[in-house]
Parts: sequence; C-alpha cells; structure tokens
Amino acid sequence: MLDRIDNLLAELKKQQADSCFISSTANVYYLSGYYTDPHERIIGIILVDQLDPIFLLPKMEEKDAREAGWKHLIVGYYDHENPWHCLQEFLKKQEKQPAVMAIEKNHLTIQRYNELQETFPNVTYTDATEAIQNLRLIKTKKEHDLLRTAAELADFGVKTGVEALKEGVTELEVVATLEHALKKQGIREMSFQTMVLFGPKTASPHGNPDKTKLEKNNLVLFDLGVIYEGYCSDITRTVAFGNITDQQKHIYDTVLGAQERAVEASKAGTAVGELDKIARNYITEQGYGEYFTHRLGHGLGIETHEYPSMHSENTLPIEPGMCFTIEPGIYVPEVGGVRIEDMLFTTNYMPIELTKYPKTLQIIS
Amino acid sequence: MLDRIDNLLAELKKQQADSCFISSTANVYYLSGYYTDPHERIIGIILVDQLDPIFLLPKMEEKDAREAGWKHLIVGYYDHENPWHCLQEFLKKQEKQPAVMAIEKNHLTIQRYNELQETFPNVTYTDATEAIQNLRLIKTKKEHDLLRTAAELADFGVKTGVEALKEGVTELEVVATLEHALKKQGIREMSFQTMVLFGPKTASPHGNPDKTKLEKNNLVLFDLGVIYEGYCSDITRTVAFGNITDQQKHIYDTVLGAQERAVEASKAGTAVGELDKIARNYITEQGYGEYFTHRLGHGLGIETHEYPSMHSENTLPIEPGMCFTIEPGIYVPEVGGVRIEDMLFTTNYMPIELTKYPKTLQIIS
Repeated sequence: MLDRIDNLLAELKKQQADSCFISSTANVYYLSGYYTDPHERIIGIILVDQLDPIFLLPKMEEKDAREAGWKHLIVGYYDHENPWHCLQEFLKKQEKQPAVMAIEKNHLTIQRYNELQETFPNVTYTDATEAIQNLRLIKTKKEHDLLRTAAELADFGVKTGVEALKEGVTELEVVATLEHALKKQGIREMSFQTMVLFGPKTASPHGNPDKTKLEKNNLVLFDLGVIYEGYCSDITRTVAFGNITDQQKHIYDTVLGAQERAVEASKAGTAVGELDKIARNYITEQGYGEYFTHRLGHGLGIETHEYPSMHSENTLPIEPGMCFTIEPGIYVPEVGGVRIEDMLFTTNYMPIELTKYPKTLQIIS
Repeated sequence: MLDRIDNLLAELKKQQADSCFISSTANVYYLSGYYTDPHERIIGIILVDQLDPIFLLPKMEEKDAREAGWKHLIVGYYDHENPWHCLQEFLKKQEKQPAVMAIEKNHLTIQRYNELQETFPNVTYTDATEAIQNLRLIKTKKEHDLLRTAAELADFGVKTGVEALKEGVTELEVVATLEHALKKQGIREMSFQTMVLFGPKTASPHGNPDKTKLEKNNLVLFDLGVIYEGYCSDITRTVAFGNITDQQKHIYDTVLGAQERAVEASKAGTAVGELDKIARNYITEQGYGEYFTHRLGHGLGIETHEYPSMHSENTLPIEPGMCFTIEPGIYVPEVGGVRIEDMLFTTNYMPIELTKYPKTLQIIS
C-alpha cells in the first residue's frame, strides 16, 4: 500500500499540500488494505510530510487493522474519547503540525470539517478528491484480476438465479437461492442489494424484490454483484420465462443493439460521454428514447459506483486500465423493462468484457 | 408524513429558518415514506415556508416515489442535468426564495454544501441535525410496532442460525442459512452485515465471517438484524457449541450480569451514560474492564445506528418512546469474546425488551 500512499503524496504536493486526511471507507481501504464500515465513528488515514502514515480508528479495531496488514502508526480512541483530541495530542508529541491539508470534499461532512478546523485552526484546506479519484481510476494488474474474479462470481449468481426460475417462485426466493449459493463460494457481501424483478415490475429501474410470484411469459430482470476481496462486480441480464410479446422482443433487441454498439466504441481516446450518446441515439432511432431514463453506466472498483459517471456530457477520454459498466435500459410502463449490463476493462485496443453470461435472449421454459 | 414535516418546520422556525434541505437517506425516508439509496446522485426534501414540500430526485425514480405515497411536488432531473439548476429554476417559477435554510451538517458533504451555496448565494445556513434527530428520537406507536416485528425476525434469525450449528459447518454457511430463511419470510435486506463468528474469532468485536469451520467446544457469536418496512433490528447472542472453559463461563456470566443491570436501569430520567457506567463498573469489578472496548449501545430505528450514542459521557436523560441497544461485551484475545445485545423500547415504567431470544447460556450439543 506504500506505493499508493507515495503516489497520493506526490499528487498532493503539486497542489502545495503537505498533508492529508482521508476518511471515506473506500479510500481508507485503498490506502491501508483495511476495510471497515465505521458507521458514525471516525476513521482516517492522516499523511503528514516526513512522518510515518497514521491510522486514526476506534481502539477496538486496532488488532483487525494490524491483521489486515497496516504496518504504520495507529492512533486508537475509545468511544467516550474525542478522536480529534487524540490525534492532536499525538501530532504535538511528534512535533509535527500540518500547514496545507488536503481533505475529501466529496465525502467529509460539514460537521466533521468544522471539527477538523477547530482541531487544526491554522491549517489551509484543499481538496484531495480529484487526486485520489485519478489514482483509483486506472487499475493495476492485481486489481484487474480481482475485478475479473468478482465478475465471474456475478455470472455464477445470474446462472444460479436463472436455474431457480419456476412458476410460482417469488422474487425474494430467487434472491435467497442465488445469494445462498454465492455465500457457499465464500462471498460475504453483495456489492449492492440484489435485484430480481418479474413481469411488469421490470419496468422500474430501481424496483425492489418482494413476494411477487413468477408467472408464465414474464420478463425476469437480474441485477447483482459481489464484493470479492474488496472489489465489486455488477451485472444485469433480462431473460424471458416462456414467451414474450413482439414488442418486448423488439425492446430486447434494441437494448442489446445499443449495448453492443457502446461496448465496441469503448476504446482509448473516446470520451465516455460518447458511449452514452451512441447507445442513446440507437435507442431513440428505434423509438424508445424517452424510456431510457438513466445514464449509460458508471465506474466501479472498490465501490460499485465510482468515478467516472458515464453520462452524455462527460468528456473524460477513455484510458487503458479503466473499469466501468455499460448498461442501457428501456422501461415501458405496463409493458416491461429490459436492461443489459456488462463490466468492461479497457485496454490499448478492444475492451475486455469481464462479465460473460450470454447476452442473446435466453428463453427459459 | 405531513405531520412530521409540520413538526420539523415548527422546530426550525424556533431557529429562524424558513426553509430546509434534507438529503440523508434516512431522513428523506422519515419525511417522505420513500426509501432510496441514491448512491452518488442527489436526493432531497426541500421545505420552503408557504410552499408545498418538494422532492428533488432522479427522474427515473419519480414513479417509485409516487407509489410510496409522496403526494407533493417533485422536481425530477436526468443524469446529464444539474440538479441544483433544476431546483433553482423551479423555485424561481414559484417566486419563492428561501432566506434561512436549515441543512444536515452531519450529513451534507463540503462539496454539496458549496454547490448549494452557489445555487442560493443569498441564503443563511443553519443546522437541522438536532431538530430532526430529536423528532426521530421519540418513536410513535406505529414505529414501536414495526421495531417489534423487526426484533421478532431477528430472534428468528438467531434461532435459525443456532439450529444450523454442526461440526464442520462454516461461518458463511450459517450466515447463508439464516439469511435464506429470513428472505423466505419476506425480508429483503439485513440491517447490517450478519456476523457469525466461531471460537477465537469471537474475540474481535468487528470480526468478519469466512470459511472458518465450527469445532467442538467453540463459542459462537451471532450479531444480526433485519430491515422490516424501513425499521431496523439488532440482536447479539453468544452460545456454546459443546463445553466451554470455566473462564469462558465466567466471562459469559459477567456480560450477562452487566447487561441485565443496565437493562433494569433503563428508566425514564436516567442519563444514558449512566447505563454504560453501570455495565462497565460491573465488568471492571469482575476483572475484565480493559476487555470491554466499546460503548454500551446505540439508538436505532430507521438506521441501525442512530442517535443517541450510549457512551459513558452522554448525559441525555431517557424518555418514554426511545429505542436503543444494550450490548456489553468482553473480548479476551486467544480466550474468546462474549456479547449479549437486546433492543429496548423505553416506557414510563420498565423498558420493553423487543428482542426475546433466551439470554441464559445456551449449550448446543
């Protein structure tokens, strides 16, 4: 992890920061190798020039952080203590006071920021968001491998879910079956709440599985992912349970056509917003423009949704080593919805599709 | 939900605010009845004096919000649009401009705050955190009923988990079994990541289940909860799989004694910090003070961890209608850990224990 810390400090030096306070779960994990959801407690990696990195965290987690591989300083605090005072005392002892501190303005709350300012009143604050976002944007070979395994497990989740489809089964039963199978594979946590939707419910891009029962000739939408060693996967497939109408088939073919066109265009140098436009234009040509109500996709890695946002106005050019989703969808009320989503890893040439479950319409009978 | 909105506006008027912007998932749910995790997107309930409440949210979620019962204004935005501009335009049309706006300083990030300030440059900002926290602190009869059902389902989860214990089963398999059973009961989501720990791993208060296998004479720790209609439960039980040592039994009895003493003291008028002290003193008397490394508990409701924090320095007096956990623990490295946690609902007299799974040491053979 030390190379990541060094890279971050080098980036921050460019903006005259001699220190930083990093407190989001994802970035703390990126820099420390220790993943923890602190709930309302404070955790943070504090980097100060010429000082060994500091991990501020609840005392009860010290041992876990060590076991996860953190070899540097730890400032632990009890629940009844003020973490800021503990940190301040520690730095005083080291005779180190930061001058310009970079913080995560896209994460730190106003309240925490005020507390930080009270603790270090003579410090100037800058924003670390972009620097760390740019570091995380380009994945290493090791991160690629973790994402690939996470994607394979997502494929397995869809496969297991499809196999569990039978008349009368509920959405939640299918969720339970596929998550049970993934837990047996050693998956502790899904990367987001698994979505299994039947029939007309597929028309909601953010629908929730419940006790709705599967009926013949339903569309079935799966959207799921796992966390594998800290890295997230994300896949969506829509299948037909029995026969579907010509209109539903046309919607399916349109989404698939849009998805494949965007995947094919995912080459180094292309702006990510272009991909959204390519998919959107195709869907619009086919008459469904108004029913594609969200962006094309999102970056993913330590977080399911991370930088960059794949929306039409984003001019960020694709570089090798990026990982993002391509997931156009069409949602027609009463008729149903179709979304097809893959995780892509970009290279110097064609992108690698990390998720591999078949995309041609699967008819389950 | 309109009474909650009215109550909030009345509270805010006391601090001269004529408007507010509420954007945390939990508080948006509290005020709107619509639960959504917006990930990196913005959602918000905007209340402006003399104007119907406004829900700012992604266009693709408008329908879901309506179906969840939102009857007031909606400002929807597409992913490529600037939500702040959409909101500003809308308010301009209504010829309403806020003067003093209350925001959630414990939730809003610096970045969002800067965007809000740019959108409404002539507004003064105050903090809505305390007002809304105080409203949510005292639960209604309906909230009590939901929490009770959530607690019953948590009991069922522990029961199912205990029944799944057998030599050689892995922690993750037990997690899978009990979550599968809960999903069949209609539970879509756990309130946090289920913890099932075997043997020496119980000594970590934040341990993670993995493929560790159950062995004879292991302590087994369950910490889990469900979300039932938006309300969270949380229970911890530690059981013995076979025989445990005299020291482990002594630890169990000590935790149980501390827990029961704190539960008994949970009466209106007592400061919540007193409860922590009562449990901590007892554990210290028995010689394990240094191994009780966290606070006594936390409030819960829409969030698993919410106000108040049950730590020793908290002077907040208990009132009827509060819901919190009492969960002392002792964690001795190599020897093992024991935690016993119940959800309490306070009344004018004795507290109601919402979780009811037996607390006397269960020996599973």
